[in-house]
Amino acid sequence: MGNIIVGQSGGPTAVINASLAGVFKCGKDNNIKVYGMINGIQGLLEEKYIELNNEIKTDLDIELLKRTPSAYLGSCRFKLPNMEDNTEIYEKIFSILEKINVDKFFYIGGNDSMDTIKKLHTYGSTKNKNIQFIGVPKTIDNDLAVTDHTPGFGSACKYIATTVKEIIKDATVYDAKNITIIEIMGRNAGWLTASAALTKSDDCNGVDLIYLPEVVFDIEKFICKVEKLQKTKKSLVIAISEGIKNKNGINICELEEENTLLDCFGHKSLSGTANNLARILYKKLGCKTRAIELNTTQRCASHFMSEVDINESFLAGSFAVKAALDGENGKVVVFERTSNNPYNIVMKAHNVYDIANIEKKVPLQWIDSENGTVSSDLIDYIKPLIQGEVYPIMVNGLPKHLKLNK
Amino acid sequence: MGNIIVGQSGGPTAVINASLAGVFKCGKDNNIKVYGMINGIQGLLEEKYIELNNEIKTDLDIELLKRTPSAYLGSCRFKLPNMEDNTEIYEKIFSILEKINVDKFFYIGGNDSMDTIKKLHTYGSTKNKNIQFIGVPKTIDNDLAVTDHTPGFGSACKYIATTVKEIIKDATVYDAKNITIIEIMGRNAGWLTASAALTKSDDCNGVDLIYLPEVVFDIEKFICKVEKLQKTKKSLVIAISEGIKNKNGINICELEEENTLLDCFGHKSLSGTANNLARILYKKLGCKTRAIELNTTQRCASHFMSEVDINESFLAGSFAVKAALDGENGKVVVFERTSNNPYNIVMKAHNVYDIANIEKKVPLQWIDSENGTVSSDLIDYIKPLIQGEVYPIMVNGLPKHLKLNK
Repeated sequence: MGNIIVGQSGGPTAVINASLAGVFKCGKDNNIKVYGMINGIQGLLEEKYIELNNEIKTDLDIELLKRTPSAYLGSCRFKLPNMEDNTEIYEKIFSILEKINVDKFFYIGGNDSMDTIKKLHTYGSTKNKNIQFIGVPKTIDNDLAVTDHTPGFGSACKYIATTVKEIIKDATVYDAKNITIIEIMGRNAGWLTASAALTKSDDCNGVDLIYLPEVVFDIEKFICKVEKLQKTKKSLVIAISEGIKNKNGINICELEEENTLLDCFGHKSLSGTANNLARILYKKLGCKTRAIELNTTQRCASHFMSEVDINESFLAGSFAVKAALDGENGKVVVFERTSNNPYNIVMKAHNVYDIANIEKKVPLQWIDSENGTVSSDLIDYIKPLIQGEVYPIMVNGLPKHLKLNK
Repeated sequence: MGNIIVGQSGGPTAVINASLAGVFKCGKDNNIKVYGMINGIQGLLEEKYIELNNEIKTDLDIELLKRTPSAYLGSCRFKLPNMEDNTEIYEKIFSILEKINVDKFFYIGGNDSMDTIKKLHTYGSTKNKNIQFIGVPKTIDNDLAVTDHTPGFGSACKYIATTVKEIIKDATVYDAKNITIIEIMGRNAGWLTASAALTKSDDCNGVDLIYLPEVVFDIEKFICKVEKLQKTKKSLVIAISEGIKNKNGINICELEEENTLLDCFGHKSLSGTANNLARILYKKLGCKTRAIELNTTQRCASHFMSEVDINESFLAGSFAVKAALDGENGKVVVFERTSNNPYNIVMKAHNVYDIANIEKKVPLQWIDSENGTVSSDLIDYIKPLIQGEVYPIMVNGLPKHLKLNK
């Protein structure tokens, strides 16, 4: 039997390393050597990889890895060219893999990364190569098709709902009219923003309004709504997705001025939606406003993870290896929810062609944009995913992380 | 013996309610009725107060209160006029207190709030009133004079250092040149920003540069420094105080454009320093940059508190009551550090005149602005304050808070 190689790709999450730990542990338990690509497929093309068995030596290392945020192996945003446009790159990848006797290839990532699995699998099948390709889902955005939800989503929701609940407490502390606008990640899908609705409970009034990017954001109606709410409530807390757009498809952050930055990859960063909306409200209503952007912390807050999420992430990694050992190829690990109360899922290996490059948005029937709320079905869907806590291993007052010695 | 009244004032912290719990518990243990002012002295003037014994009924309620962020009783930013300008307001306060037979008055707050204690004590002494006034320190900013540090500072530092450590992991995930600028609270004092230096450890390279508001921020030198660092390191993470100013005393957030918002109290909000600096770097170096503002979460993240801090906050509240029972008046509870290793403090009651309205900044010998670092003395000073963890009481996946039924 050949060796395993595993890589991480796309934006990191708090639990992406739990999936890596799952792949490694299952490989190790089956006495298979496990390689790790440094910076995903981009690094592999430069023959940058390590033997994970040399790095992760003890069970404590595995536990530390599970609790380490961001991608331990490094990540990339690299789209493989089409096979017909550039066969050299495929030949190169396969020759590198063959050189180190790899016959099982795992890639942990979102829908862009699943495109890599799809293309490599397609090339391998066409050329009768003996390498299996399996995708392990990962994204805080929860925008992957077919699967009930994605690893990483639950922990991000738990962190967001907790932080929003704390901000609501903070916002109501003075006896004065004020508006807080909280900006949550999500360019096209509002899953994460919806988690702010979980704050409503017997000890918290919850957020007053929620706006997701799936529905056109009508600023005039929004201002009217806020004015009306202010008549009965001094302190308003509003959750919005970074990607909300007006009827012309213009992002709210781009409405008044050019205040965008380019992120690490030259993508236009949508940072600034809450700030812009706070400015507009202040101008229109003359009311005290503040904008809070939850930002990168949403995808890396491993100090407060969902136990359900970290366990599922780990198991998704080991399930991928088991699926490969069972002969699966060109598949992605997906979750199927068999029951909501009590919560239960089963894992399956699903055809990558149904998943790669497809973005799953929040169903419109779960959004009530007229009232700025989401349905109880959506809340019931998210709630099981934030249950239980896994805390970091603390050393000298701070979380300990596993560091790659590259 | 008369009754106790306690109020909370100024910006909230993650542990301000632990001090309230301390006052309440010690009063209750001494069979004294404890009133709580709603929205501090401002609410008291409108006779808004509650009997805390009716609200906090069980030991679990006390534990919940300790873990509830923001001010349970509500807060205010209200400066009492000078005695000679307005005696009516003082007469009114004292008559309200006398009506409910209060002879011990506790105020939990920062240096502005201690001004209230000072003025009420002065008026009381002048008029031979039989009411004792004691201040309980509270501020994440750690800018209170005389005391070694303030309750609230340790938990904020722990949250900031943990989050910055997670952001550093996130920032290094891609094999690409990038700069992350993290904006931390602190208009005039850089204590909180200094806590970002705690990230440097055997599993983390730490932040690359730190800038505090105590020292003039030289943009040209800063850009040179960044350019130089980029020659050996692809990913840079820089921590700055929101209040850093150039040699003309202009806040960096106000340099390029008018992008400030007014906060709840009409104060100019300095939000935007990191954003502005990121824009400037992007223009000058053409490099990918991102700005992260830690924001309000620094003062309300009760999901990840320092055990040392929450214990000290609780004990400061009960010490205040004991001091009053011992006959102290016109005093503030202060901490004196008797040993750093092992860490130990003693509490004392100190004259409020030495503390009210005075802002304690980071000593200049602890800041190396030339190299963008802080001294090991500063790190050694903060480190004991972030030790140990107190986690929330979790219900249905989220922290449970104690809610005031007003």
